Amino acid sequence: MDIGLIGLGKMGSNLAKNLLDHHHNVVANDVNPDAVDEVKAAGGVPAYSVTEVVNQLESPRAIWLMVPAGDVTKQVVTELRDQLEAGDVIIDGGNSNYKESLARAEELKEKGIHFIDAGTSGGVEGARNGACIMIGGDREVVAPLEDMFFDITIENGYLHAGEVGSGHFLKMVHNGIEYGMMQAIAEGFEILNKSDFNYDYEEVARMWNSGSVIRSWLMELVQSAFAKDDNLDQIRGVMNSSGEGKWTVETALDFETPAPVIALSLMMRFRSQEDDTFTGKVVAALRNEFGGHDVVEKS
Amino acid sequence: MDIGLIGLGKMGSNLAKNLLDHHHNVVANDVNPDAVDEVKAAGGVPAYSVTEVVNQLESPRAIWLMVPAGDVTKQVVTELRDQLEAGDVIIDGGNSNYKESLARAEELKEKGIHFIDAGTSGGVEGARNGACIMIGGDREVVAPLEDMFFDITIENGYLHAGEVGSGHFLKMVHNGIEYGMMQAIAEGFEILNKSDFNYDYEEVARMWNSGSVIRSWLMELVQSAFAKDDNLDQIRGVMNSSGEGKWTVETALDFETPAPVIALSLMMRFRSQEDDTFTGKVVAALRNEFGGHDVVEKS
Amino acid sequence: MDIGLIGLGKMGSNLAKNLLDHHHNVVANDVNPDAVDEVKAAGGVPAYSVTEVVNQLESPRAIWLMVPAGDVTKQVVTELRDQLEAGDVIIDGGNSNYKESLARAEELKEKGIHFIDAGTSGGVEGARNGACIMIGGDREVVAPLEDMFFDITIENGYLHAGEVGSGHFLKMVHNGIEYGMMQAIAEGFEILNKSDFNYDYEEVARMWNSGSVIRSWLMELVQSAFAKDDNLDQIRGVMNSSGEGKWTVETALDFETPAPVIALSLMMRFRSQEDDTFTGKVVAALRNEFGGHDVVEKS
Amino acid sequence: MDIGLIGLGKMGSNLAKNLLDHHHNVVANDVNPDAVDEVKAAGGVPAYSVTEVVNQLESPRAIWLMVPAGDVTKQVVTELRDQLEAGDVIIDGGNSNYKESLARAEELKEKGIHFIDAGTSGGVEGARNGACIMIGGDREVVAPLEDMFFDITIENGYLHAGEVGSGHFLKMVHNGIEYGMMQAIAEGFEILNKSDFNYDYEEVARMWNSGSVIRSWLMELVQSAFAKDDNLDQIRGVMNSSGEGKWTVETALDFETPAPVIALSLMMRFRSQEDDTFTGKVVAALRNEFGGHDVVEKS
Repeated sequence: MDIGLIGLGKMGSNLAKNLLDHHHNVVANDVNPDAVDEVKAAGGVPAYSVTEVVNQLESPRAIWLMVPAGDVTKQVVTELRDQLEAGDVIIDGGNSNYKESLARAEELKEKGIHFIDAGTSGGVEGARNGACIMIGGDREVVAPLEDMFFDITIENGYLHAGEVGSGHFLKMVHNGIEYGMMQAIAEGFEILNKSDFNYDYEEVARMWNSGSVIRSWLMELVQSAFAKDDNLDQIRGVMNSSGEGKWTVETALDFETPAPVIALSLMMRFRSQEDDTFTGKVVAALRNEFGGHDVVEKS
Repeated sequence: MDIGLIGLGKMGSNLAKNLLDHHHNVVANDVNPDAVDEVKAAGGVPAYSVTEVVNQLESPRAIWLMVPAGDVTKQVVTELRDQLEAGDVIIDGGNSNYKESLARAEELKEKGIHFIDAGTSGGVEGARNGACIMIGGDREVVAPLEDMFFDITIENGYLHAGEVGSGHFLKMVHNGIEYGMMQAIAEGFEILNKSDFNYDYEEVARMWNSGSVIRSWLMELVQSAFAKDDNLDQIRGVMNSSGEGKWTVETALDFETPAPVIALSLMMRFRSQEDDTFTGKVVAALRNEFGGHDVVEKS
Repeated sequence: MDIGLIGLGKMGSNLAKNLLDHHHNVVANDVNPDAVDEVKAAGGVPAYSVTEVVNQLESPRAIWLMVPAGDVTKQVVTELRDQLEAGDVIIDGGNSNYKESLARAEELKEKGIHFIDAGTSGGVEGARNGACIMIGGDREVVAPLEDMFFDITIENGYLHAGEVGSGHFLKMVHNGIEYGMMQAIAEGFEILNKSDFNYDYEEVARMWNSGSVIRSWLMELVQSAFAKDDNLDQIRGVMNSSGEGKWTVETALDFETPAPVIALSLMMRFRSQEDDTFTGKVVAALRNEFGGHDVVEKS
Repeated sequence: MDIGLIGLGKMGSNLAKNLLDHHHNVVANDVNPDAVDEVKAAGGVPAYSVTEVVNQLESPRAIWLMVPAGDVTKQVVTELRDQLEAGDVIIDGGNSNYKESLARAEELKEKGIHFIDAGTSGGVEGARNGACIMIGGDREVVAPLEDMFFDITIENGYLHAGEVGSGHFLKMVHNGIEYGMMQAIAEGFEILNKSDFNYDYEEVARMWNSGSVIRSWLMELVQSAFAKDDNLDQIRGVMNSSGEGKWTVETALDFETPAPVIALSLMMRFRSQEDDTFTGKVVAALRNEFGGHDVVEKS
């Protein structure tokens, strides 16, 4: 089928190639014309502006966004909103907050434009060769696109999860779980690291990936990481985060649901981004006040 | 090779069959003679007492224990200690605390008896068809047994992790990670459950197992569990625990290492075992004291 | 001075009496006319509608709201907005979210109406005899009201904390700290409760209030609660929460600051409100899947 | 009464003066003879060895230890054990683990020597002018000493909590609560610190100490600390810990009781003692593996 694709970064460009492999006609756009040319070279139709995407597709159009969540998504959707016609479909493949997606769908509905939220997992490799995609949207809007979704996902990797919003919600929770799993794994390796035993972490990860209860793709990545740097001496333990982990915790708060492991996973990331903390200073000062305990003076 | 096997429960009986499949000569014992007879029927040599195990093996003997950690392991090791000879090997395949294994090795060394700690993962299925085994022990003690270890494990599922204690330590940490991963996954599904969306959890798990970052054996088990009971209506959320999660947290405390996710995973299990808490009563009473907030009276 | 007071619940009615004690002229209103009559009997000027409050005060008016945060506050402010004149002041003494207060101040500014946010602590007793009040607002707006604020607060219990919003922000954080302190205290008593020792909790609290590091008003309330019910047998440990704890955690997330203790205090409250959890069911089902561990069937 | 006092550090020397103020006859010893001389100058009886303490007291002796918990306490008790007679009493005023105190009492009982565990709070100032002391011991052993205990404690600051061990247990839990309260307070100030408002922390603490729900001795110490260094710029946020917080968490684990706030308070202290973490490296490496996210290279 014909599909517009806006956003040709790491994820988008690979998705374009994946679509092209499956004989879809991809009208591809990016703010960076070189990225457009690259997809053109791979067989895609170049579009050097959002308008060119719209103009090179016939209604009902399907346009997939693979741009950063937040302001950029907002801006592109606004631009499309002014140019699309009733019956066209916007698929947001980014990590947008599901509340924004719900609002966006409402807003587009006023013009008769359909909205689908597509949470995408599996990384760059998945985008290229078979992604994992969780879709939210009306049955009748999603149905004509399903063959295309099946084409670009791996077996069982496509799910029409429910109504609009349910796809991004599911991706959000997926990432929340991911935070918890990663922190659990990492805490385990820290305990190994602090022990008197002398483990070969790559070998440990390989063994754990072979028949143990904790075998997982993340553990395979641990194995791969230790294969490259056997004690991770080259990097600092600064754990950045994008928005989904935070949204998951906020959602848990909204639902008045305890999610201690996901919350702590996120908070330990925040902690890792600081060298020193005011919390620590207050506690240290307090200990000094009541017990005369030494404080560590600022050097 | 000839191997003694004491403890023919779910894990032990399957391990026996696994060993027999690989043409090892298994002298099998259990407190339950029926379990012994079952292994006999499968081709094993029956032993109706620990002494019969010892007597039917020639020195240097290798005797694998698959009995519950703690008192039972202690008792069996004590009994063996009095009957074995220098050069014999005891392999503890249970979930013993690594500190006990270290002490046990020292104690046995006085009589020249060797000790190997074998952390075993992969569940009943693994024991039967290919386990994941992490071994601690002296190189020269482990070496003659390695062919046997390779036989009963799946590819890459055998690791000689290091000195005595390192196998049980690794298994302990494995279980700590497992606690964290399980709690992370479960928190995620609780958030899905509290949402207004109407997910099919089995389908969600299947999709997440297909190309997503959180694909894992545990997620496969989630899929299987939801396949049987699509809303888990049949069971209560009481999360029991055996010792390894607790030991992992204690070890983190000993190492002065934060392990918040593993610790909280364990504590939420404890919480699930209580209907009401004194903590909650104190907070509720306090809120009533200062703010006149209503308390929930005991019905 | 003349002051309007809207909202005569537990806090408001006591604040009215406190103001009257200090010879302020209180024009008092509540949706419940009986509450108005009660303040009238105590010497206040009755107002049976918001309009009557406005009409019985001369410009520049000062009107204190002691109504529930959220919708009610919004509604009363909207009503006042239409009736007040430039130079009048609205003091929000409720537990409003500081972000709403910031927005409210902006909105009122368009009409020249001033806004002061007043976080109030100390409970009903404090409202009556000397509260603790943290004020956010412009210096020149706050200044003419300071004598009144000093009158109704205890020594050092009044603070002009900073600009608009800073009062409610401070109250929010105060409550976040309170959550953490309460949970810490409660966890301690639970550990006492689980021990083999046979403590008299009232005596313990009295002793801890007498010279120990953890002496505090909250511990005094613990003492008082145990004096009434020595084992808290009469109540259930259901810990409710109003919004401030949640807002504190959300603010920490916004600031990318770890606040694990405040977050967990809140989450344990959420947990206490549930009899059973989906999280627990998922973990229990998983344990059953991989280890054949028994699950607790629903009775 | 006559009392031996071993250990004249910050706490012990002030306790000696407190006892002398109340006309008790203090036979004082320390490894540092200067400390002994100081007490001598204040009116105490000098003892330059444990033996001199024993010899200068008549049976039944009461000897108070104010030495570091752990090895030093063990060593002094062992020395005393060999020299004391049946009916003598050892009072351990240090922060010993209650399990050790229980074992110690058993051991001393074999020689007829009594043991009392005395948890002491209130810091140096309390030791000097009125401490808070929680006592574990047999009724008949404690009774003859109670006048002395009342003398050196502030009103209501003395509690005979129960049997041997109950005093140190109570002190342990006291410190656990203290950890939680301190972390809660500190997290609150960190959130203030991260906000756009410009708080004067000393003033905030003073106000919160005046009528608010969170008024407490710890908040008074916060006030004092900020009075000295208004932004705590002079110190680093390294939060050390002695053993009681850890023991409280271990005890919670032993009782299978959730104590998330106390546990996290401790773990954040551990975290503060590290510049970088292996946990963080593993998570950072994983993010790089699956998402191509940048890692922070070691400089």
